Amino acid sequence: MDEQKLTNIAELGEFGLIDHLTKDIKLTQKSTVAGVGDDAAVLKTGGRKYMLVSTDLLIEGVHFDMAYTPLKHLGYKSAIVNFSDMAAMNGVPTQIVVGLGISAKYTLEAIEEFYAGIKKACELYKVDFVGGDTSSSLHGLFISVTVIGEVEKDKITYRKGAKPSDILCVTGDLGGAYMGLLLLEREKKVFRANPDMQPDMEGREYILERQLKPEARTDMVRKLKEKGVVPTAMIDISDGLASEALHLAKSSDAGVVIHEEHIPIDHVTFDTAREFSIVPAVAALNGGEDYELLFTIDQKDYEKIKEMPGISIIGYITEAAEGNRLITSDNQQIELTAQGWDALKKQKSKPF
Amino acid sequence: MDEQKLTNIAELGEFGLIDHLTKDIKLTQKSTVAGVGDDAAVLKTGGRKYMLVSTDLLIEGVHFDMAYTPLKHLGYKSAIVNFSDMAAMNGVPTQIVVGLGISAKYTLEAIEEFYAGIKKACELYKVDFVGGDTSSSLHGLFISVTVIGEVEKDKITYRKGAKPSDILCVTGDLGGAYMGLLLLEREKKVFRANPDMQPDMEGREYILERQLKPEARTDMVRKLKEKGVVPTAMIDISDGLASEALHLAKSSDAGVVIHEEHIPIDHVTFDTAREFSIVPAVAALNGGEDYELLFTIDQKDYEKIKEMPGISIIGYITEAAEGNRLITSDNQQIELTAQGWDALKKQKSKPF
Repeated sequence: MDEQKLTNIAELGEFGLIDHLTKDIKLTQKSTVAGVGDDAAVLKTGGRKYMLVSTDLLIEGVHFDMAYTPLKHLGYKSAIVNFSDMAAMNGVPTQIVVGLGISAKYTLEAIEEFYAGIKKACELYKVDFVGGDTSSSLHGLFISVTVIGEVEKDKITYRKGAKPSDILCVTGDLGGAYMGLLLLEREKKVFRANPDMQPDMEGREYILERQLKPEARTDMVRKLKEKGVVPTAMIDISDGLASEALHLAKSSDAGVVIHEEHIPIDHVTFDTAREFSIVPAVAALNGGEDYELLFTIDQKDYEKIKEMPGISIIGYITEAAEGNRLITSDNQQIELTAQGWDALKKQKSKPF
Repeated sequence: MDEQKLTNIAELGEFGLIDHLTKDIKLTQKSTVAGVGDDAAVLKTGGRKYMLVSTDLLIEGVHFDMAYTPLKHLGYKSAIVNFSDMAAMNGVPTQIVVGLGISAKYTLEAIEEFYAGIKKACELYKVDFVGGDTSSSLHGLFISVTVIGEVEKDKITYRKGAKPSDILCVTGDLGGAYMGLLLLEREKKVFRANPDMQPDMEGREYILERQLKPEARTDMVRKLKEKGVVPTAMIDISDGLASEALHLAKSSDAGVVIHEEHIPIDHVTFDTAREFSIVPAVAALNGGEDYELLFTIDQKDYEKIKEMPGISIIGYITEAAEGNRLITSDNQQIELTAQGWDALKKQKSKPF
């Protein structure tokens, strides 16, 4: 009998697993500028720009539910979540390759819809679809997208560059994608209980779109460039504001303070959260999948960004010793903790 | 009722599906040199070299069977099949990113073994592991590897450059990986029937290694460079010699002739094929997964390669009108047809 204790992966969580598996990786290629640990790897090519590479998996039953996910939207979103990683490095996507494992329940017409969504995203973001691999799978749809992007060498932004007194900013509004998900899950249950019921989605189009058809904020990368602002650190919000802010602070060896009242939340998100008895800021902090950009700027750049539409100042960076804090709307100071997907695993069936 | 006829994907086969889905893709990025349709996409970076990108999926129950695949070997092979795509462009791999979907049956220790295999391949081939994504999956292991590589601009080799009278060459020997697979499948059945039976693998190590732990022929890329030979066209043998030769001929708008008696086959492969009542050349032509390089050279380079160890001259290129032909050992001329994985789908459960 094997006496070695075997470890259940769920005990580590996604980030623990990645840290564990990649901790002893040695980089030897002179073209590798940065490897595991940011939104994308950074490569030197001999040209004027750095090349960026990132990969994301989307797995049926884990990341998406075919009961309410149109395949064209799924294709679109599969591309967008990767484009967002390029924006998080202050870069833009240029090419993608797509791996697709397809089970027997999918027809050619269904897969065409999926590709139509990918192609639409590529067209809108001016990205070339340059390759891929298709295979059968025994169970469901398995999507792997790898994106290549580029960024000028003096504009690249890592997670690690934030300094104490830097201003913490976020683009757009938060929590909408998560409330859209909860709404879809609720309507799925209603429909199962009574297939004659019509879904009650009126006026909720905004949060449904946030969940089913998000956008990557490459527009903000362009606008920051036009203003002459290079963020000191940046990350995209795939796992919820709290989780991403903690990543950014940890990578920068700093602390972070977020003011709850400054977290931007759309009124549809707000109303739907209330209806679900969820504190709206909690949807923003822990919900995820908003694909907005969370970034820090030096105080000298404050004047340049304070009037920029679509950017909210939500906090600031401190010394690491001061910890990570949330200042609540009633002025309480509490520790900022990451729940992100880990805490939501029951809803999302994403155990790590 | 929807009157539209829906299409079963298996009707198209893998290559039909890829052609169908990618036929209307437009490329707009000035950095894209070549997209879908070769072993890798080719990107221009402003540097002296082209960058190459390729992606491959490996799906449990389709591409591998956990009953006889050690996880460390699986990690190694996942990297190698991608490195081989770089060799097929006359390039070398430089970085990889790995996506991994993991079902609950896998422990941390099992996944560590898989990563150990990937890292071993990276170490031996001097490739940097620069990123990835991990997720849970509901069913089995899903592996997605994307490789980045490089090649000097004047050395890049596509599938499309073969000209009539070019010499057709192949590295190493063929059919071994397929015979290794059949051997493993047979022993699995024997073991299931009687778990006390010891597997009869003695003297078959070579073909087991060809199946479980293949190598990418980047060494041949280096040797050809040392000899000053740039192939006119090249492809790696993942789907069997016949299928790959037809790809190369079609891409080059040419015909191909292969002499059966010149196909290099190792004696272990030969003996095992005979034992399984398979014509050894058929294992080479249709078996696949050998990851050798099939390439063409201009006749002027004949003197340079004729004495190179590990290279066999197996045929030549003709005008397209002459068709694709196999000259059998008893001097019959038959049409060369691609069976590859499609024909082997029952053995490999790979429907397309």
